[in-house]
Amino acid sequence: MDINLPKSILPRVVIVGSGFGGIQLAKSLKGKPFQLVLLDKNNYHTFLPLLYQVATAGLEPDAIAEPVREIFSEQRNFFFRMAEVLRIDPQQNQLETTIGLLRYDYLILASGSQANFYGNEELTRHALPMKTVRNALALRSHLLENGERALELLDKQQQMEQLNIVIAGGGPTGVELAGAIAELRDIVLAKDYPELPIKQMHIHLVEANSRLLNTMAEDSSRKAYHFLRSMGVTVHLKTLVQSYEGTVVTLSNGESHPAKTLFWTAGVEGVIIPGLSATSVGKGNRYIVNAFNQVEGYPTIFAIGDNALQMMPAYPHGLPGLAPVSIQQGQQLARNLVALNRKQPLQPFRYVNKGVMAVIGRNRAVVELPFWHTQGFIAWLLWMGVHLLLLVGFRNKSATVLNWAVNYFSYSRASRLIARFQNSPVESVTSVSRP
Amino acid sequence: MDINLPKSILPRVVIVGSGFGGIQLAKSLKGKPFQLVLLDKNNYHTFLPLLYQVATAGLEPDAIAEPVREIFSEQRNFFFRMAEVLRIDPQQNQLETTIGLLRYDYLILASGSQANFYGNEELTRHALPMKTVRNALALRSHLLENGERALELLDKQQQMEQLNIVIAGGGPTGVELAGAIAELRDIVLAKDYPELPIKQMHIHLVEANSRLLNTMAEDSSRKAYHFLRSMGVTVHLKTLVQSYEGTVVTLSNGESHPAKTLFWTAGVEGVIIPGLSATSVGKGNRYIVNAFNQVEGYPTIFAIGDNALQMMPAYPHGLPGLAPVSIQQGQQLARNLVALNRKQPLQPFRYVNKGVMAVIGRNRAVVELPFWHTQGFIAWLLWMGVHLLLLVGFRNKSATVLNWAVNYFSYSRASRLIARFQNSPVESVTSVSRP
Repeated sequence: MDINLPKSILPRVVIVGSGFGGIQLAKSLKGKPFQLVLLDKNNYHTFLPLLYQVATAGLEPDAIAEPVREIFSEQRNFFFRMAEVLRIDPQQNQLETTIGLLRYDYLILASGSQANFYGNEELTRHALPMKTVRNALALRSHLLENGERALELLDKQQQMEQLNIVIAGGGPTGVELAGAIAELRDIVLAKDYPELPIKQMHIHLVEANSRLLNTMAEDSSRKAYHFLRSMGVTVHLKTLVQSYEGTVVTLSNGESHPAKTLFWTAGVEGVIIPGLSATSVGKGNRYIVNAFNQVEGYPTIFAIGDNALQMMPAYPHGLPGLAPVSIQQGQQLARNLVALNRKQPLQPFRYVNKGVMAVIGRNRAVVELPFWHTQGFIAWLLWMGVHLLLLVGFRNKSATVLNWAVNYFSYSRASRLIARFQNSPVESVTSVSRP
Repeated sequence: MDINLPKSILPRVVIVGSGFGGIQLAKSLKGKPFQLVLLDKNNYHTFLPLLYQVATAGLEPDAIAEPVREIFSEQRNFFFRMAEVLRIDPQQNQLETTIGLLRYDYLILASGSQANFYGNEELTRHALPMKTVRNALALRSHLLENGERALELLDKQQQMEQLNIVIAGGGPTGVELAGAIAELRDIVLAKDYPELPIKQMHIHLVEANSRLLNTMAEDSSRKAYHFLRSMGVTVHLKTLVQSYEGTVVTLSNGESHPAKTLFWTAGVEGVIIPGLSATSVGKGNRYIVNAFNQVEGYPTIFAIGDNALQMMPAYPHGLPGLAPVSIQQGQQLARNLVALNRKQPLQPFRYVNKGVMAVIGRNRAVVELPFWHTQGFIAWLLWMGVHLLLLVGFRNKSATVLNWAVNYFSYSRASRLIARFQNSPVESVTSVSRP
């Protein structure tokens, strides 16, 4: 059965995914002659750059997730449906979804990325990813439960093993998590669990490359390393997690560290929907797109954001998986869809790197602007400012600012409930059930 | 194995439950010569009077739930353990819990109440209770999902049936839910779902007695009825829910109403822990206690709050299940435990009714103070003021106030994620798994 939508003579644009790219594209198409349909399995957009704050009890989930219907409450000819896409039928220009069939004139795949365990079943089972609000709540609950469970153990050694954390992946997410967990340990856990040897709790950050934040410049990497070291994080460079069966993490450098917790930020891959030719999928499980974000071989199908592999001279392995890339692609694709509809020529996408940043903790961040690098307190103020600006349009912005202010001045953490979200009800039964 | 606690020569007071009674008792025993142990299956205290706000998307869960360790961060000789009590062994003065055995000198049962479906299996399966944060999130998700699911239906009649809500029980919780859902319908759902016949969505409130809020005075009942009617709620008095198999609610007056949703606030019963004599449990599945809150037949075991049946001349069926009763019992029991320990005589509990109130919506509440009844806007201001005062000690107070202010001025709702909490990890496998 077809998904129930008003009849329209306008061409139908179907967007899969309510991340930065999908939301931006839909916003940029406001007032244009299309019937817009946005599909997502959740009814909200997640502000991923602050997800690590949910995972470390700094913000509640509602502060970083905004209902899609709220974002588009003023936009006509826009239709949201909460559904998961099961299959693309490019011959029929049609999607098979959990709530029915959906015909499209233009299809935009903006389904983002997911954790990549590189086929390691042990890791898939035991390591905790950090890609969704549900993941973040699982991490938060895990961190706090470690304290509760450690109280049941009689032996300091066992207690430490219960408390230890290993984080795989020294990119921005891993670095931000490591810093925030170090602060959680020193500020919250030390106060909440005076009976435990919290000071001896180890935080290991494991990175395969020779430096942290390897998509940034060397001075940023060095400073991030220095910041984390000074906060009591053990950083392992040129090292891989080799195996983990739930109690001991074995590293490629021969070391092994007892830890009940392994957080996984060491790899992502695009979310691919069955139905398109295998030749349209490239490195990192991403759709190979041309300069107009058209998927190789499908003139009416586009991919933007983390699931798109767009090669550029400066980016021979594809553009990085960053919110600004998705947003700029969404803006450009909106212009190109209007052009395509008018049978006008398309304009190629150009990525403008306005800067990159990562935050390590209170007063500590690293920022790279096109002509200026800075680290420390000024960088942290910049990071705060940019993220507050980016939250504009999010109506929970005020609550977020308030929570940050409370955390900053009280050295405490607002959101420490041990509680996990259930699987999304529309999540396909075939997908791996993760905590 | 015994739960791991510091050795102490002080008598050990074990409190089961971190509700209003248990928290107050532990606070009132600050600095007294006891080793205090508080057990709860969640790591947080729930501010139940505002739970209906979570269920109707007005507040996020973190705003009304406070970590127990935060509340007692300054209190020495206080120990919290996240565990469920499985059995009391009064011969050995010992508890069997999910994390080990626990000896007590004084045991205080403050485990509260749970939904009572009066043995009706159909209701147990299909009706949604409203006693926990998890319940409230399930209600919120259900209300919002009804909108999403109704969009998949082609027929207006089916859409209405998907949207309709029946609430069983016209006490404070039922009245507050009905009012808040009517506002959610008019303010949020009407805006979020312009494609649906939201105006025709029915809200039924079903009450067995001849009036709503039957523990309050008749003028309050009348006014609450009038308020709800004016907000488009259909109130059925002297009526019971007879059966519900998930699609049609059949009432005792012969009517039947198609509805995919039945919220259950029509009955509660005390939470009883196995191990004590059956004769110690009375009406409403509550522990029969004397004027000192001692459980019938057990001089060192006490019950306070919703799971205590304490008869008083003015309350022949026991005191009502209200936060002020629990709090006052906690305060009095603290004094009596100190007296008992000094072998001094105990003082009987006296309940001081400082007033009761219920809120029906924006600017609409009913308030009964000892010498004054008021309804409407002034009552609503009083309700707001009292609840803000009661939230003192909750550090999320500021976020709550902010959310309320945002809701009030924007006519919107802050927390509309469709997401449910999982079962608590320590919840016993034998307990009925509810959404």
